[in-house]
Amino acid sequence: MSRIPCVLALCALSALASAAQPRARDLGVPFEGSPGPLNAITDIAGITVGQVTLIEDLANGNKVRTGVTAILPRGPASKATPVFGAWFPLNGNGEMTGTAWLDESGQLEGPVTITNTHSVGVVRDAVIAERVRAGGADASGYWWSLPVVAETWDGHLNDINGFHVRPEHVARALAEAKSGPVEEGNVGGGTGMVCHEFKCGIGTASRLVKVGDHDYTVGALVQANYGVRDSLRIAGVPIGQHLRNDRIYTDPALTAGETGSIIIVIATDAPLLPHQLKRIAKRAGMGLARMGSYAGNGSGDIFIAFSTANADAQKRDAVLQASFIGIEHIDGLFAATVQATEEAIVNAMVAARDMRGQDGHYAKAISHAELVKLLKRYRRFNPLR
Amino acid sequence: MSRIPCVLALCALSALASAAQPRARDLGVPFEGSPGPLNAITDIAGITVGQVTLIEDLANGNKVRTGVTAILPRGPASKATPVFGAWFPLNGNGEMTGTAWLDESGQLEGPVTITNTHSVGVVRDAVIAERVRAGGADASGYWWSLPVVAETWDGHLNDINGFHVRPEHVARALAEAKSGPVEEGNVGGGTGMVCHEFKCGIGTASRLVKVGDHDYTVGALVQANYGVRDSLRIAGVPIGQHLRNDRIYTDPALTAGETGSIIIVIATDAPLLPHQLKRIAKRAGMGLARMGSYAGNGSGDIFIAFSTANADAQKRDAVLQASFIGIEHIDGLFAATVQATEEAIVNAMVAARDMRGQDGHYAKAISHAELVKLLKRYRRFNPLR
Amino acid sequence: MSRIPCVLALCALSALASAAQPRARDLGVPFEGSPGPLNAITDIAGITVGQVTLIEDLANGNKVRTGVTAILPRGPASKATPVFGAWFPLNGNGEMTGTAWLDESGQLEGPVTITNTHSVGVVRDAVIAERVRAGGADASGYWWSLPVVAETWDGHLNDINGFHVRPEHVARALAEAKSGPVEEGNVGGGTGMVCHEFKCGIGTASRLVKVGDHDYTVGALVQANYGVRDSLRIAGVPIGQHLRNDRIYTDPALTAGETGSIIIVIATDAPLLPHQLKRIAKRAGMGLARMGSYAGNGSGDIFIAFSTANADAQKRDAVLQASFIGIEHIDGLFAATVQATEEAIVNAMVAARDMRGQDGHYAKAISHAELVKLLKRYRRFNPLR
Amino acid sequence: MSRIPCVLALCALSALASAAQPRARDLGVPFEGSPGPLNAITDIAGITVGQVTLIEDLANGNKVRTGVTAILPRGPASKATPVFGAWFPLNGNGEMTGTAWLDESGQLEGPVTITNTHSVGVVRDAVIAERVRAGGADASGYWWSLPVVAETWDGHLNDINGFHVRPEHVARALAEAKSGPVEEGNVGGGTGMVCHEFKCGIGTASRLVKVGDHDYTVGALVQANYGVRDSLRIAGVPIGQHLRNDRIYTDPALTAGETGSIIIVIATDAPLLPHQLKRIAKRAGMGLARMGSYAGNGSGDIFIAFSTANADAQKRDAVLQASFIGIEHIDGLFAATVQATEEAIVNAMVAARDMRGQDGHYAKAISHAELVKLLKRYRRFNPLR
Repeated sequence: MSRIPCVLALCALSALASAAQPRARDLGVPFEGSPGPLNAITDIAGITVGQVTLIEDLANGNKVRTGVTAILPRGPASKATPVFGAWFPLNGNGEMTGTAWLDESGQLEGPVTITNTHSVGVVRDAVIAERVRAGGADASGYWWSLPVVAETWDGHLNDINGFHVRPEHVARALAEAKSGPVEEGNVGGGTGMVCHEFKCGIGTASRLVKVGDHDYTVGALVQANYGVRDSLRIAGVPIGQHLRNDRIYTDPALTAGETGSIIIVIATDAPLLPHQLKRIAKRAGMGLARMGSYAGNGSGDIFIAFSTANADAQKRDAVLQASFIGIEHIDGLFAATVQATEEAIVNAMVAARDMRGQDGHYAKAISHAELVKLLKRYRRFNPLR
Repeated sequence: MSRIPCVLALCALSALASAAQPRARDLGVPFEGSPGPLNAITDIAGITVGQVTLIEDLANGNKVRTGVTAILPRGPASKATPVFGAWFPLNGNGEMTGTAWLDESGQLEGPVTITNTHSVGVVRDAVIAERVRAGGADASGYWWSLPVVAETWDGHLNDINGFHVRPEHVARALAEAKSGPVEEGNVGGGTGMVCHEFKCGIGTASRLVKVGDHDYTVGALVQANYGVRDSLRIAGVPIGQHLRNDRIYTDPALTAGETGSIIIVIATDAPLLPHQLKRIAKRAGMGLARMGSYAGNGSGDIFIAFSTANADAQKRDAVLQASFIGIEHIDGLFAATVQATEEAIVNAMVAARDMRGQDGHYAKAISHAELVKLLKRYRRFNPLR
Repeated sequence: MSRIPCVLALCALSALASAAQPRARDLGVPFEGSPGPLNAITDIAGITVGQVTLIEDLANGNKVRTGVTAILPRGPASKATPVFGAWFPLNGNGEMTGTAWLDESGQLEGPVTITNTHSVGVVRDAVIAERVRAGGADASGYWWSLPVVAETWDGHLNDINGFHVRPEHVARALAEAKSGPVEEGNVGGGTGMVCHEFKCGIGTASRLVKVGDHDYTVGALVQANYGVRDSLRIAGVPIGQHLRNDRIYTDPALTAGETGSIIIVIATDAPLLPHQLKRIAKRAGMGLARMGSYAGNGSGDIFIAFSTANADAQKRDAVLQASFIGIEHIDGLFAATVQATEEAIVNAMVAARDMRGQDGHYAKAISHAELVKLLKRYRRFNPLR
Repeated sequence: MSRIPCVLALCALSALASAAQPRARDLGVPFEGSPGPLNAITDIAGITVGQVTLIEDLANGNKVRTGVTAILPRGPASKATPVFGAWFPLNGNGEMTGTAWLDESGQLEGPVTITNTHSVGVVRDAVIAERVRAGGADASGYWWSLPVVAETWDGHLNDINGFHVRPEHVARALAEAKSGPVEEGNVGGGTGMVCHEFKCGIGTASRLVKVGDHDYTVGALVQANYGVRDSLRIAGVPIGQHLRNDRIYTDPALTAGETGSIIIVIATDAPLLPHQLKRIAKRAGMGLARMGSYAGNGSGDIFIAFSTANADAQKRDAVLQASFIGIEHIDGLFAATVQATEEAIVNAMVAARDMRGQDGHYAKAISHAELVKLLKRYRRFNPLR
């Protein structure tokens, strides 16, 4: 059995290639708000992202099309210093481990990792093993870990029941996580994902927000795998109704409804308390709704939000101090969350490439030319960015 | 102090007039899905709606622009027979009483009433008083009532701190509730409401859904009072960005963000259990999101859903039976909820009329001609309905 | 119709009398932890409590046995400066208004008021009217109020459907709220309440907690109206099983289960964030459970917690600062919450006096002598306190 | 590296031995309510329990003291036919996977498995692998699984960071699950657990409940690992305050608060809808509270409840039928939940045996003689059972 995962050098090349590829706004898709320099979750200082992509045709005929994406809120310091965080399940047909503690403590300890549905367990224990290997007690001071691991289902293209994600892939995603541009499309946990019946995967975007005199950034990273074709709207244009052909699913059970999921990670450097981050997490669903989603029964639409501010508030003292945005000043962050989510999803679709996988299944990416044509037809083409 | 509320005869006339007025789809706004005969929440058999509209210029200069809207899930039988129900607060800057019991019991007992923010109390106690007057114990068998009363804030146009809603108005809304067309716009609880900085109020819509061999209806009724101008999208068209003038708010505190709210009532005759109705209630927010809302801090975006099926499941026996939609067959109801919510909001905007109120404040309704012009410009005009 | 409510002078006398009455620990009931000087919620600096007691035999034969209890987190400053707060419904067969906003904002604005089930509305609107009368905008900066009003059902002894609580009673409870000892038993909102089928009402207690080098206080105030006789445990002694006679309910529907409710208000001067206060609120239910409650279907067991710290965190700036207890240092506050709740309930029972009310119904208070006898029998008598 | 896990024959012997051991009520601990024939969760027809116990002293000095406990709601039919279910986290310092879908769907698909904190992942993926191996699609009809796996932390006695639970242990626990008596104490997931600083582990109990003319059973199974010594109450007797010696923890960080957790599984054959099962799950915490717990910050107190009734309601039809208990008839099930939980915890303590483990740590079981002596002293000894 030979295996050719995306090895380090190739991944780097791939990232380079991707950088040369147009993103949604390069194509002329209009969006609201002002993006950060990278238009990525990594516009927030300290956040690193590591992705391991597993693409391999096995000798036994099975196709590996999966991977792991890890978001480290404070980069290497994530192990020692939690962030304030919260989550919201719009439709809970999915898994995000660690949420009971996230709800209770208001803290996200360690990374957020995203993979396929049937590999959540191996990723979870591997995150703990890496923490053990790094030595010392957890940030919590207790000797246990409750990592946050989420998933979407790539079983259409990937041999999901082959359980191909291994602890070493997790270790590598964590070790190689970096700041800078984030590769989008068929990479990491998003490798085999599909949305609105187009090939999809990882996408990201960001927004700059001024609150009083302060400049903040909101970033979104999605692993997008949700949605039926007909309902797809991009920038308000009913794209799905025009592009009804080339659907990937021939199985009527699948075409009958949403069978995917979307994990949305929202990050910000604005200081927000846990109960405020829950409000942010809820708004991710409003960005998703703009795409035409109705959060179908089969879709695990689960969102997590965290703030990288308040590092000192995570210490182990008896009394701590935290900064936070005044309640009447939060709307800009809400709007930015909706906007960044919307763009991150379109970015995932635009960056994805056609893929053939398990059992001969095939998923075609959305045609950039068709998309541009429809935007123009509906006077939503925005060439000037 | 003279007072000229909408008396019965005038209300009837007004309803007649309204019936002659175009609704959103009459203007050419395109929507997804198939509406019921009335395109109203009353397409669901048994539901009655009563509205009392209070419009009066007081001798002391104050302006009364408020009212009460009552939705009776089973019409007059609502007192004796609850419905399964659930609620979801997308942004809880508002009040909906009775929700602790709704969550706990899964039952909605009696009507849903909607009024202005500062009149929730009088409406609540008046609903109880009407129940007491009708005699006998509550449907619950206990001798107490926990009515569901919700609100949005009409203090821009209405003398809200004059507390002009009185128990007799509630009694009348309950007594006069009827099936058939529902008056929209500046009526009932929606009299003084504003959305996206246009005059707004009550709106309704419905969708027909086939589940297996069964035909069901989903209806929405909204009291819409939310949203900033810029974010308004109708049918995906960025209407708000084109119609930036004629804003009602000159107070920068108000233009800084959302200061309104929206109550969305979703009803269906499809048999759904309480935990399924919570899923339905959540989808109302996705219809709202299609309008461009980001659920601003100042907005009380609170939704309630109920099913008129399963009347026999509300008896007082030790063991009861309930029907419900199989989990894999629910997507049509989700989509219908999103669609009906979206159309009900646009209906509220389209039906509303310019209003002058408290302190000389003025709210202009959206211009039908402008709306049609913009729909055409973006090729979203749908003249064929 | 003559009416003799507890007028000011009499209330003062009554308070005096009550002060001379033994409280639970005076009788020898053993409790864990160290109480504050007053063993009352008012041990927390700034908190004031106002109670209006309505006891009257009407000419038409109806009996008024009800009232209002108001807790002002910051005394007169409560109008201008919210507190961080949270709530938890253990069993939601009850009403607590204002909780959607409490959940969303993490702030409690204004007082917590408690009354009977059918008077929640009048109390709610009256709290708003008082705010309007005091002039100026709300602390929120918006021009609306969403007061927190809770209830338990006193319809066994009180003519609850006579709606005897009036706005002026609310105004008086707010105006006369004071620090110092809190009257317990048949007073305020607790006037007609019953628990474990004994006469009950208002009770309070407090605990001193050291966190690091800091000294904090946790206080509880309950309006107790829950529970069946058999399940009553005091200090672990199965009191209810021994005192099976003298039950108040002859109606089998009532003896079949819990028909009451309990509102528990937890206050502290320890700095806690909203998500931490939700944890505190949950622990109130564990104090209740120690009494033998199983939170029966008919019981509205609803809890609210707030912290008087962080007054500066309630300002309207863009960025604010808050203190909070480190997550690993919170257990003392949890334990104190359980302990103070437990003692406040027993205090309510011990302070209550026999009462005859509506329809000849009668509720006997627990016999102090019997209680002491049983404590001694089970070696739980603690005379040294 | 040699490894001597509890092999099948030994396990059976161990079970036999255990059957001969006294349970809590055999010792004279008084409890409320009437237990089923086995006083175990398996009194509910169809439920099977499988436990794999891993006890081994490794050559490298590490001590394996852990395992897996699996509860199959419908025995071997659990794969094909879900049950209605719900969960409640009293204090979320722990993990229970699969809860987002449990909340959303109201269905528990497959088994509930419980293990140590750092082995949740391997157990989760192994449950999926077993399902895949059994062939065919999931009960959900989709091709993914979201298993429920919970944990408590056994790192005091067990080499938890050695990750000794393996997929084959999970397979065996599932394969060998059986009805009949359930082994308690140092077995399965409970092998290395500690509660109130006494050796603890798995415990179970049941209650018979009559609702109308129907006879139902409520069963509890706990993996108990929570609590400090001082707070321990058994049958209301302050046991912990008398047995202050022989504490296991010498590390002040641990003695400072709760560092364990408790997973409580409640099962019933009474027909309950998902929202009703959430109410049941909440009551488990009230049984825990009777033991003196205040749900410390470090404790993951997470509860799940399911009903084995309504097998036909889990089919894939468009419209289904379910039975359920009328809302006013549910109190007996609430009380039974509290009672069974309380007894299951005491059973876990009574069945546990002294254990020496990792790093020389030692945990002593509670002395039966001391317990009996204290019960007698406080007149709570109940010899007639």
